[in-house]
Amino acid sequence: QGTRDHPPAQAALRERLLSAVGSCFKWHGAAAIDTPVLELRETLIGQYGEGSKLIYELQDQGGELLALRYDLTVPFARYLAMNKITNMKRYHVAKVYRRDNPAMTRGRYREFYQCDFDIAGQFDPMIPDAECLKIVHEVLSDLQLGDFLIKVNDRRILSGVFAICGVPESKFIPACATVDKLDKVPWEEVRSEMVGEKGLSPEAADRIGEYVQLHGGLDLIERLLQDPKLSQNKQAKEGLGDMKLLFEYLTLFGITGKISFDLSLARGLDYYTGVIFEAVLLQQENEHVEEPVSVGSVAGGGRYDGLVGMFDPKGRKVPCVGVSIGIERIFSILEQRLEASGEKLRTTETQVLVATPQKHLLAARLKLISELWDAGIKAEMLYRKDPKLLKQLQYCEDTGIPLAAIVGEQELADGVVKLRDVATREEVRM
Amino acid sequence: QGTRDHPPAQAALRERLLSAVGSCFKWHGAAAIDTPVLELRETLIGQYGEGSKLIYELQDQGGELLALRYDLTVPFARYLAMNKITNMKRYHVAKVYRRDNPAMTRGRYREFYQCDFDIAGQFDPMIPDAECLKIVHEVLSDLQLGDFLIKVNDRRILSGVFAICGVPESKFIPACATVDKLDKVPWEEVRSEMVGEKGLSPEAADRIGEYVQLHGGLDLIERLLQDPKLSQNKQAKEGLGDMKLLFEYLTLFGITGKISFDLSLARGLDYYTGVIFEAVLLQQENEHVEEPVSVGSVAGGGRYDGLVGMFDPKGRKVPCVGVSIGIERIFSILEQRLEASGEKLRTTETQVLVATPQKHLLAARLKLISELWDAGIKAEMLYRKDPKLLKQLQYCEDTGIPLAAIVGEQELADGVVKLRDVATREEVRM
Repeated sequence: QGTRDHPPAQAALRERLLSAVGSCFKWHGAAAIDTPVLELRETLIGQYGEGSKLIYELQDQGGELLALRYDLTVPFARYLAMNKITNMKRYHVAKVYRRDNPAMTRGRYREFYQCDFDIAGQFDPMIPDAECLKIVHEVLSDLQLGDFLIKVNDRRILSGVFAICGVPESKFIPACATVDKLDKVPWEEVRSEMVGEKGLSPEAADRIGEYVQLHGGLDLIERLLQDPKLSQNKQAKEGLGDMKLLFEYLTLFGITGKISFDLSLARGLDYYTGVIFEAVLLQQENEHVEEPVSVGSVAGGGRYDGLVGMFDPKGRKVPCVGVSIGIERIFSILEQRLEASGEKLRTTETQVLVATPQKHLLAARLKLISELWDAGIKAEMLYRKDPKLLKQLQYCEDTGIPLAAIVGEQELADGVVKLRDVATREEVRM
Repeated sequence: QGTRDHPPAQAALRERLLSAVGSCFKWHGAAAIDTPVLELRETLIGQYGEGSKLIYELQDQGGELLALRYDLTVPFARYLAMNKITNMKRYHVAKVYRRDNPAMTRGRYREFYQCDFDIAGQFDPMIPDAECLKIVHEVLSDLQLGDFLIKVNDRRILSGVFAICGVPESKFIPACATVDKLDKVPWEEVRSEMVGEKGLSPEAADRIGEYVQLHGGLDLIERLLQDPKLSQNKQAKEGLGDMKLLFEYLTLFGITGKISFDLSLARGLDYYTGVIFEAVLLQQENEHVEEPVSVGSVAGGGRYDGLVGMFDPKGRKVPCVGVSIGIERIFSILEQRLEASGEKLRTTETQVLVATPQKHLLAARLKLISELWDAGIKAEMLYRKDPKLLKQLQYCEDTGIPLAAIVGEQELADGVVKLRDVATREEVRM
């Protein structure tokens, strides 16, 4: 349940997509690493907030207690700490596992791919963070998914907002999780969850509401830096200062047009400590709608400066920032688009089918195909002693093989091959 | 335990290797499929003989009882049956899981890659089987691993041998497992296991010994076809007839020089029904040794005509033959060879580092690198506001970046960039 086989057409589309995203990561100088699907349970438990209950655990068959990885970020942090690496730019494209309620139509599965790019190391502020946003911009532009928006916020700004609105620190993380729903439900619902479930006072919730509904650009950052209360909060001030720097760098990258500083962005995971971001695709349903509608998140990430330290026996910190591309949702979109276009993706790369028009010529086919393979030509033949020529040509049409190399009695006698263009039916002897 | 992280150098070598093997499979017109790492326990249990106790089971957290796949063959058969596919040529490169005693130095892990190519469908005898052997020959030749030998046998010939030697049918599979050890231990030991552990009579064991120590080519096949006892056994006769056909096809492929019909080859898995094969690397320790020594199996496979039917509710059979490349052992060999050569594999593809020789030029670097990325050039920069030029050039040398694009105050004023060849130190302004 919640997993699926990928038949060739899907596997081919997926390979194309994963390789496009991987290329973009390599573009930015990232090296690949690979970590096991299995992690020690103790490594994963407690890292994912409410998500921890979705971890797949292995049966105790003697030896270590294991679980399947829930994402690629925690294994990366574990890898850095274990190998005492303090400086690394890596990407990792691999499957992760969550015992979630599957929702196949929305691309939510229990086994799914993640494509992660992360920069670990102590650097000057916001330079790696800006590159992560540039990468999101590049990937989404390259894949031609349509218009998109990258929302940016900072956990420190949110903490500052909570603090000045009178939320006790113990409630910051639950409050974050609630604010994060603002992109799906209206403020009134978020407010009532804050007051009802999370136990915030109605006044605190109202004050929070004034902030988290704001979004904008450099102008908003400047305004909040002047905000008499917020600017007095140390965390918020740091966050806003860095956000300003980030926007300067993004201006140099020429991508601020698709970036929105959005105070409602909170992201669910516990381990973020600074900048957070999330990219959504925008859909212009029709021309009467003025504001473009979001059709869901396709990338996300942020800064997690504390995670590596949790796996180091001496608690040594390695600051990190990273991005994860939501490949499954993008895959669903591309698949639907391909289906709508009626275009058929080839699932093989065969250049030529070796065929015979008469009986008793299997040996000739085997000899010729062997020569083609040895010469580096991608070739197939039917696994029949005496297949009909029509059947062989039909196979070419069904699988998109462009050429047939035909060797019959006459060709054998003349020492030639008849090369046929399957689409045009043109033939040359050679 | 028994798993490992692949740091960038290993991941790069592995990617190179997997892509070489995958290319060879595509060469032969195979399409990729992908199946989940998780399978239902009931799908796996009972398919692997003694191996079944090595299956990783997931904890019962409600819902289905799951296990991690043990190989890629059983999931492929399950996939064919589930989707009622009767005809397919596919490859699959992915990780499998076995709770085995790890032996890292010999490349035996609990999580490891398999690279499988299989042909499913009802075809004329031995044509797909011959292609599988051709592929093994191509992969091992392409990877330049040194001299190798592909041993071939047929389960039906072995069954015939057991039958005419007086082994009861219920003991065929255990007897197979014992015969399979002949490549590692001398006949005397195999014989005593047969008599002691497996309960065969000493006479039966001796008669078996006369057959299973034979190996050769077409001549041996012809001789056994004339063997007064063996030729009377229906199974053996079929197997020998097919083996003869196989050798004819392999002769047309021009690869019989590296093929040995070897009656000791048995292979452990329960599901094989016909041709079986295994490739071993040969090592010429020194010139005094006359016979080359085998250093272990690097590929194997065979025909399994009954497996798909086990997963079909109506038991419909789909004949299959396939090959699995032992990528982990090959990886160990290539890694040792790379280490011995002192050659350093680049782990990134960066073409140019954007550098500045003076302070306060971060903006210029960000602007230039952004232009390079947008123009499709693989570029990096250090994540520092004011890094020293020496440090930037050192980074190029450490990571193998061939060029540095340097923009200093003078270059900015002149509207040019200084392009430096890191190895030769030559510079051009452009």
